[in-house]
Amino acid sequence: MAKPKVIGVLTGGGDCPGLNAVIRAVSKTAINVYKMKVVGYLDGFDGLIENRWIPLDYDTVSGILTQGGTVLGTSNKANPFNHPVKRGGKTVYKDMSDRAIQNLRKVGASVLVCIGGDGTMRIADELADKGMPVVGVPKTIDNDLPGTDVTFGFDSAVCTAAEAIDKLHSTAQSHHRVMVVETMGRYAGWLALYSGLAGGGDVILIPEIPYSLDAICKTVLKRSRSGRRFSIVVVAEGAKPAGGDLTVKQVIDDSPDPIRLGGVGNLLGQQIEERTGIETRVTVLGHLQRGGTPTPYDRILASRYGEGAARLAAEGMSGLMVNMRGNDIGSIPIKEVAGSCRNVPPNSPIVRTARALGLCFGDEVKTKNQILAGTF
Amino acid sequence: MAKPKVIGVLTGGGDCPGLNAVIRAVSKTAINVYKMKVVGYLDGFDGLIENRWIPLDYDTVSGILTQGGTVLGTSNKANPFNHPVKRGGKTVYKDMSDRAIQNLRKVGASVLVCIGGDGTMRIADELADKGMPVVGVPKTIDNDLPGTDVTFGFDSAVCTAAEAIDKLHSTAQSHHRVMVVETMGRYAGWLALYSGLAGGGDVILIPEIPYSLDAICKTVLKRSRSGRRFSIVVVAEGAKPAGGDLTVKQVIDDSPDPIRLGGVGNLLGQQIEERTGIETRVTVLGHLQRGGTPTPYDRILASRYGEGAARLAAEGMSGLMVNMRGNDIGSIPIKEVAGSCRNVPPNSPIVRTARALGLCFGDEVKTKNQILAGTF
Amino acid sequence: MAKPKVIGVLTGGGDCPGLNAVIRAVSKTAINVYKMKVVGYLDGFDGLIENRWIPLDYDTVSGILTQGGTVLGTSNKANPFNHPVKRGGKTVYKDMSDRAIQNLRKVGASVLVCIGGDGTMRIADELADKGMPVVGVPKTIDNDLPGTDVTFGFDSAVCTAAEAIDKLHSTAQSHHRVMVVETMGRYAGWLALYSGLAGGGDVILIPEIPYSLDAICKTVLKRSRSGRRFSIVVVAEGAKPAGGDLTVKQVIDDSPDPIRLGGVGNLLGQQIEERTGIETRVTVLGHLQRGGTPTPYDRILASRYGEGAARLAAEGMSGLMVNMRGNDIGSIPIKEVAGSCRNVPPNSPIVRTARALGLCFGDEVKTKNQILAGTF
Amino acid sequence: MAKPKVIGVLTGGGDCPGLNAVIRAVSKTAINVYKMKVVGYLDGFDGLIENRWIPLDYDTVSGILTQGGTVLGTSNKANPFNHPVKRGGKTVYKDMSDRAIQNLRKVGASVLVCIGGDGTMRIADELADKGMPVVGVPKTIDNDLPGTDVTFGFDSAVCTAAEAIDKLHSTAQSHHRVMVVETMGRYAGWLALYSGLAGGGDVILIPEIPYSLDAICKTVLKRSRSGRRFSIVVVAEGAKPAGGDLTVKQVIDDSPDPIRLGGVGNLLGQQIEERTGIETRVTVLGHLQRGGTPTPYDRILASRYGEGAARLAAEGMSGLMVNMRGNDIGSIPIKEVAGSCRNVPPNSPIVRTARALGLCFGDEVKTKNQILAGTF
Repeated sequence: MAKPKVIGVLTGGGDCPGLNAVIRAVSKTAINVYKMKVVGYLDGFDGLIENRWIPLDYDTVSGILTQGGTVLGTSNKANPFNHPVKRGGKTVYKDMSDRAIQNLRKVGASVLVCIGGDGTMRIADELADKGMPVVGVPKTIDNDLPGTDVTFGFDSAVCTAAEAIDKLHSTAQSHHRVMVVETMGRYAGWLALYSGLAGGGDVILIPEIPYSLDAICKTVLKRSRSGRRFSIVVVAEGAKPAGGDLTVKQVIDDSPDPIRLGGVGNLLGQQIEERTGIETRVTVLGHLQRGGTPTPYDRILASRYGEGAARLAAEGMSGLMVNMRGNDIGSIPIKEVAGSCRNVPPNSPIVRTARALGLCFGDEVKTKNQILAGTF
Repeated sequence: MAKPKVIGVLTGGGDCPGLNAVIRAVSKTAINVYKMKVVGYLDGFDGLIENRWIPLDYDTVSGILTQGGTVLGTSNKANPFNHPVKRGGKTVYKDMSDRAIQNLRKVGASVLVCIGGDGTMRIADELADKGMPVVGVPKTIDNDLPGTDVTFGFDSAVCTAAEAIDKLHSTAQSHHRVMVVETMGRYAGWLALYSGLAGGGDVILIPEIPYSLDAICKTVLKRSRSGRRFSIVVVAEGAKPAGGDLTVKQVIDDSPDPIRLGGVGNLLGQQIEERTGIETRVTVLGHLQRGGTPTPYDRILASRYGEGAARLAAEGMSGLMVNMRGNDIGSIPIKEVAGSCRNVPPNSPIVRTARALGLCFGDEVKTKNQILAGTF
Repeated sequence: MAKPKVIGVLTGGGDCPGLNAVIRAVSKTAINVYKMKVVGYLDGFDGLIENRWIPLDYDTVSGILTQGGTVLGTSNKANPFNHPVKRGGKTVYKDMSDRAIQNLRKVGASVLVCIGGDGTMRIADELADKGMPVVGVPKTIDNDLPGTDVTFGFDSAVCTAAEAIDKLHSTAQSHHRVMVVETMGRYAGWLALYSGLAGGGDVILIPEIPYSLDAICKTVLKRSRSGRRFSIVVVAEGAKPAGGDLTVKQVIDDSPDPIRLGGVGNLLGQQIEERTGIETRVTVLGHLQRGGTPTPYDRILASRYGEGAARLAAEGMSGLMVNMRGNDIGSIPIKEVAGSCRNVPPNSPIVRTARALGLCFGDEVKTKNQILAGTF
Repeated sequence: MAKPKVIGVLTGGGDCPGLNAVIRAVSKTAINVYKMKVVGYLDGFDGLIENRWIPLDYDTVSGILTQGGTVLGTSNKANPFNHPVKRGGKTVYKDMSDRAIQNLRKVGASVLVCIGGDGTMRIADELADKGMPVVGVPKTIDNDLPGTDVTFGFDSAVCTAAEAIDKLHSTAQSHHRVMVVETMGRYAGWLALYSGLAGGGDVILIPEIPYSLDAICKTVLKRSRSGRRFSIVVVAEGAKPAGGDLTVKQVIDDSPDPIRLGGVGNLLGQQIEERTGIETRVTVLGHLQRGGTPTPYDRILASRYGEGAARLAAEGMSGLMVNMRGNDIGSIPIKEVAGSCRNVPPNSPIVRTARALGLCFGDEVKTKNQILAGTF
């Protein structure tokens, strides 16, 4: 296969710290090492379908390493295989993947680097199946992509969440309060787990370990009785009760105005205050976790991913996603990872560490030494 | 009047960065300069009524300068003139102010330094009227106490809010979004105004300038049409519509489940998205604004207030609140400030500056040069 | 006087956080409110002499509010009245002020906004004397310009220095060490004083209060004997000994290789370690204090200054520098401020506060209550 | 072997962010999971020799997770096998290891957890050889301990250094300057490499790749000629010239006053300015890199190490150091790691990534595609 002369790049899915660092590294590597040109499609796959792009040269990517967001823009819902088109006042969905590939050919791009999460990887894989070479770069603040030890953006999101928990500590302590902090994490609890551990949380609730309101309140009350002035409850937005307790969905289905409930954080806030009688406040971190300058860790990881992706692209590879194993950048077939989710194993060492430090996961776990939950 | 030998100190009302810096400065000054002792009452006026206190010596206050919260604890609702007492299963409210004063006499305190906001100042004033010498220190992240240029805690809250707005910028820009950020500020808009200015917000909504949804959406749409990819709307929790639009209260009164509405931020998020068709996301900063280590500015201001309060206390003064005018620490009778609120004058120079920079306040203002709102 | 149609802007002297915020505010105000155009000269007065400039429109100034440095570049030594010109292999200095004014006329600028410190104000004043209208904006991280309560950049520099002192605390405490931190401040001690107060320093040495090595070491030893594990000495680069001790200059004059001595921080580090026997480490903060994103306080101050300067410029004023008094932006004739320095009065209230908190200024001060230095 | 009832803990060597997080995790795990007691020796091995210790219970370790430094104190030079003792006015060095072990027996400690770097591991190993069970926890901001992917403290130091480089960027850019930043790293260049990559440095000089002044200046001049306004040179304190250039040692040996030279950063600053004619400024980060609150990454890593060490200790293991491989905490015999240094392999993937991004390592490297240094 002849060496490609042009690399196309796009960023898909939700915003994430480090996107610009990947874009910069792909571009610099392609230009420096492989004497290639790089074009960046605007607003994710939408720009690819609509042939909107900018050249990515040294001047364009200069100074973007530390910037949050993506200079290319992104789109949450864009999909060349299912693109909304207006037809006589109606919106119909059409397969525009041929046009997307034509647009790449038009600018001479022989390969497309797709920076994104699971949704983006799935689309990338389909494009590869249609004969368009693609290389993937794993991005998600949730850290739930399989096939890699870590995704870029995660460390930055953990920092934002942990810093928020640090701030709430002082308020909780001054007022004898329970502070509930809701982090992102619809399917996987990595962000809640890591930020809870780093922020010194007392209870961590993640989708992988269904919680019991009883266990949570026992921990809160035990802390209160033993003279601790506060408890910090870190809850992933996807956390769910184990059995007897109401889910957010149930409360929503039961509510005439579901949009207002918010999420599990607000629900727990009400429930904990009612059951323990201790004043409880809720903070939903929301989009703060996606924004801001990436941490040095993420800048380096994103740069390494970007260099790796440019190398794979320049060498004519396709259908691979760059990944990190230990300290090594490598790659893995996108097919092996697309469509699945890397969850927190409930018995993983880091959960055991958290339990050893006295954290409660909202369950009641017996170990050979003791019932861990609610015990310290 | 003989020099007092013991100073009592307490912190009242909501948590605020810099409380510990005041406690430290009062204590160090009293010990160093006036050879006095200091006792700190726990959990605000509750500790005073219940005679719970700790000695504040060099070791107690060492290292607390940079800590958020208050080592003394605080209470939002405590009031010696209206203290809840259990009587035969019921809660009745009693005047315990005599006991509070007795408790002060018991430890030899001839003066009480009250660090707090408007509520605390009112109680302090009543105690002074009963013959108990008091000195006040103005605290509020809202900066809405009259009689002083600035309260400690405000700069720290502005920093937290501005940093959040900085983070949301990248996400807004990457996704073509409107980002609504709700700050604290029930009665006064200083925090929204300053953090909006510092964070480069596009629309700032404050209680002092009733907003029109039309004006907001015009600004948002004009920005969108002129190629700006995003708009940042900073809204104080106490912002209210001017006329035709629904208030949060109306929506709440209309709702079978008012607790879930949240506040004006969520309401505006829905309304702006509906009216403009641009994806809109809401972040409610909440208690993050009260927490965290104080900024250097607040550490210095709080230290100066604390030193000033200790000096007034040592010199036998009463009924005064320390204040800041320009660069000078002075004092003002508590009576002149208690019970009133310092608002943002709608025509103040800093509002004019914000308008000149192109910010929209949700109104439609004609100046001699142009209609300012929604124009740029 | 007819309304000016074009405003020229330049930034002079050392780098300072907030320069871009002023540039942005001048430009936005001029465009929004006065329908004027703005041109920005590159690299300070050098660009003015050499007619190098860029137009400052909405797109140019968009997004620069939070950036450190200056998008226009600056020059420390440029001076149109004394400009170096190569003549036959030699450098001669010529008065190029006529050309500078011609260049302004060429682009239609009827006024020049000069953002800078004392040196820049002096040049601005000379240009005004030659008939070229100028407006000044006071900039210096040293906060030593007279005629204003505060200069922009100071709060950011204090934050950087205080944060560094916070970091050094942990190391000092873990190791039983004296930590000497040298801040900027050749003539005035505001930066050392404020960051020392905010960082909880133990000794603060400023140019305005000559120090005695004896007093410093007494304080350090007294702390050590009373069980404090560390001492933090914050020293302005311009601090000088009172009498018996060697100055940096004397040591330099005595040294065959003066450039290597560094400054007063290193000298004190050696002297304190020798005299007290306590391990001492020195950190010279240097250019860190000039860099980085401005604090919210400085972004607002700079924006207010910029709006004020644009207003004065648009109204045909000249020879004025914008200033801050209390919370009010106003102006003052440049003539009244150029060439003088605002120092820390040794008996100012804030120095008294610092002494009351137990800080030592390296002197031995008797008050009616006690000898303050070295006493606590 | 019977289960140990008491664990001894100490921190040795230089200060490092995360020490308190390890102490907390060891203590909480021992108390929660193994029902053991923990004693903490003060000031490293000095406290062990002199039998100075404090009990580490829940209250002692509460709230220290986020604090920099070590609540136990540390000592750089303490060594029970070589302890200084005053004898008739002289200092002689004695083997006090028997007493150290006796002291451990006295408090019932059957195992000692040593948190430290290479020096501490060597002493720990000797104690193990004498029959005293020990468990090691790898600590160093230099990240140069073999046997583990990463040491705690490194991420925090990288953050401090990268943040400083971020700040210097704005100043460099505003003034057309070269900024030299000296980081720690006497033997290994990890800190300079990672912070240089994260901060967007242009030249990175590490001990493992000897530099040529020529190559550095070529890169600086090439950047200047191509319109880049600045260059950032990040240099590890242990970086050395390849051949023709003077070393710091040579300049020191040649200097009548060696202490004043400072280090390689200052030397390079002078040399680069002389050779390129571009204004150059030097910042030596020094002890800032050891201080401050640990990053979330380090808090988690330190907590995991602490839990792992407590587990090994409770299970009666000895002679092992906990380590990290990929995402897994494990252990390795101290003997295999003590006394050696983990360096940056000059051909490691991350160096290749840095070169691909255009960074210069001060050498002239030919690859199959191009001469990399000084090329972009």
